Amino acid sequence: MPQEHRSTTPDPFDWIDERHERRRRAGLLRSLRPRPADSSLLDLAGNDYLGLTRHPEVVAAARDAVRRWGAGATGSRLVTGTTELHTELEAELADFCGFEAALVFSSGYAANLAAVTALTDRGTQVVSDAANHASLIDGCRLSRATTVVVPHAAPDAVRKTLDDFDGRALVVTDAVFSVDGDAAPLGELATVCRERGAALLVDEAHSLGVLGDGGRGALHAAGLAGSPGAVATVTLSKALGAQGGAVLGPARVIGHLVNTARTFVFDTGLAPAATGAALAALRLLRGEAARAARVRAVARELHARLTAAGLEAAPPDAAVVSVRAPSPQAAVRWAADCRDAGVAVGCFRPPSVPDGVSRLRLTARADLTDDQLDTAVAVVTRTAPHASRPGDASAPPPPEGPRRGR
Amino acid sequence: MPQEHRSTTPDPFDWIDERHERRRRAGLLRSLRPRPADSSLLDLAGNDYLGLTRHPEVVAAARDAVRRWGAGATGSRLVTGTTELHTELEAELADFCGFEAALVFSSGYAANLAAVTALTDRGTQVVSDAANHASLIDGCRLSRATTVVVPHAAPDAVRKTLDDFDGRALVVTDAVFSVDGDAAPLGELATVCRERGAALLVDEAHSLGVLGDGGRGALHAAGLAGSPGAVATVTLSKALGAQGGAVLGPARVIGHLVNTARTFVFDTGLAPAATGAALAALRLLRGEAARAARVRAVARELHARLTAAGLEAAPPDAAVVSVRAPSPQAAVRWAADCRDAGVAVGCFRPPSVPDGVSRLRLTARADLTDDQLDTAVAVVTRTAPHASRPGDASAPPPPEGPRRGR
Repeated sequence: MPQEHRSTTPDPFDWIDERHERRRRAGLLRSLRPRPADSSLLDLAGNDYLGLTRHPEVVAAARDAVRRWGAGATGSRLVTGTTELHTELEAELADFCGFEAALVFSSGYAANLAAVTALTDRGTQVVSDAANHASLIDGCRLSRATTVVVPHAAPDAVRKTLDDFDGRALVVTDAVFSVDGDAAPLGELATVCRERGAALLVDEAHSLGVLGDGGRGALHAAGLAGSPGAVATVTLSKALGAQGGAVLGPARVIGHLVNTARTFVFDTGLAPAATGAALAALRLLRGEAARAARVRAVARELHARLTAAGLEAAPPDAAVVSVRAPSPQAAVRWAADCRDAGVAVGCFRPPSVPDGVSRLRLTARADLTDDQLDTAVAVVTRTAPHASRPGDASAPPPPEGPRRGR
Repeated sequence: MPQEHRSTTPDPFDWIDERHERRRRAGLLRSLRPRPADSSLLDLAGNDYLGLTRHPEVVAAARDAVRRWGAGATGSRLVTGTTELHTELEAELADFCGFEAALVFSSGYAANLAAVTALTDRGTQVVSDAANHASLIDGCRLSRATTVVVPHAAPDAVRKTLDDFDGRALVVTDAVFSVDGDAAPLGELATVCRERGAALLVDEAHSLGVLGDGGRGALHAAGLAGSPGAVATVTLSKALGAQGGAVLGPARVIGHLVNTARTFVFDTGLAPAATGAALAALRLLRGEAARAARVRAVARELHARLTAAGLEAAPPDAAVVSVRAPSPQAAVRWAADCRDAGVAVGCFRPPSVPDGVSRLRLTARADLTDDQLDTAVAVVTRTAPHASRPGDASAPPPPEGPRRGR
């Protein structure tokens, strides 16, 4: 309970109330919705793409890791926070995805901050896709480099930007973009980078376990895994069902991160439970290559049926299917109606969307049954707001909102 | 295994080799040292201050959380990543430390980035202690605010800086500084903040579980917990033996973070295992108030005996005892000699130290026995480098190195 305090001076947080009110009026207020352990909702909102977070082998590995290693890593990776479990995961992750080496972080966010900041200097030019994830953007902001934001998925714009610059350069992109689920043109970007001597950093958060041979990721699918100028970041919290992130790349890049990346040096190591769970999930993925193909097929099916019913959704390149909503308020109501009908869906509003357009974000899972898919499609279409329904000509054009937060 | 690639163009990471060589020559190369699960080393290096990371109740809670909730949180806190376990931990953490509300993050690093960035705007002035942790510094760099770095532990400098500025201000400090283990003058800082209408952000990473009544932290000890202008950040990975971090403060501040903090909105929620472990550790702490007093007593004893043996160490205000080494190379050798003699100690070199002085960093633990304390003191003094030994007048003055990385 709060200690008692006399209030004699103005409260230094008074300004927050006005921000709160502004958000409330714009329909942009967010609040937490704690879920119970035994929720009966059909989950099309989470990023557990392969359905591994409750897989018996993953659960057993996490529990075993706690028993053997304790609940925490106890220190930074350079002091006591590196267990043999961490290095085992790093070796298998690098091998699976086709890279020389890997380094595990406490989150994908931390991995992205590390990769962008450690691979750039004041003289470096970073070329960043306009729809990149917040963690890549924050990496650019934290770095001493000059960042040029280029239009989304535009290799020609990247080429032109690199042509106008003479020094060291790093091209940064998501492999699959979180909001619309579209894939980056990695082959073309890699060609541009090779021609111009630039390095390429690719965030595989939404492609590991989903794209490439057996889920080895988008760089592997493009034949770019392990190439000298390519670095990947991954999360352990989506397809691998655990927590954490990693950077994969040439051994000298990983050694450089060990020495210089602040979110590595000054952070506590990933907890043993998450490390062990991610390792078990990786081994399942290696043993069952069909999982990755299945999640892609489910996403395509979901998209085909929703658009056949008249909803507006971009074709999915991976597991994410995003359906446009006419307004933030409509998106919130739509998501709530889905929930009331037993289906959990994501609701993305500004500032979490790059173009100001609110969306329902549905995620396919490899373990979704045909019946569950039927239910999901029926519920999402039935609850669609008027303006998103088939044949409704009064639907307003998507607003060109501010691109806050991205 | 890496895919095959022809190397026809210059490697964009060639520059890394030269950096590597420069670090090697300066004795500043770091490498990972994976530890086995059954290490026989006496651990004076980790941050498991209360010895809870392998406590049976903490281990059981982590394992139970995995069984009930799965290995991962499956999504961001605003989508699927908030379980009832998260809100339970947040409520008990806030109550224990004396704040209205709390918000859990995947790391203390993420919590600090969130607090600094979300509580500041372009017009805000941040006043930051020169010895603050890297995550607070990165928070300042990420924010749009103007940051003024003031000398370490100097409330007068803070007052003067605030006097020269008219707008909104945030004073940022560690409660206990990680490198030397000294405590910030929180009472004086709070007075200055109150007089000037500034907010106060205090990182309790090394004080939660160690300082204050039963380990309630430094703000609680100073009677400042829950005051309208004070916000605390804590880690769940040190005294609480798990992983993660949290921000504690007025409910409106926490609500503001939910809506605006990028490392909250765009990060996967803390894994259930870590959440459950931290909650169990917190309950142990609440039930056994003597743990916090014990770790402080062990630290004071360690300091007294090391300095009595002629070593140079700052008096510890919490659990960290830092012993100065004559050079980075000597510190590395000293730590290796300790390890060979069965005692794990931390070795801090630039850029992890604010003043360029390399150190052995010893951490007291509440569960250290008198025999273990004897062993630790004997080993650290016996292996001390020549220049650090009693009566050696040739010891060079501490170098005034560059303050990289801080």
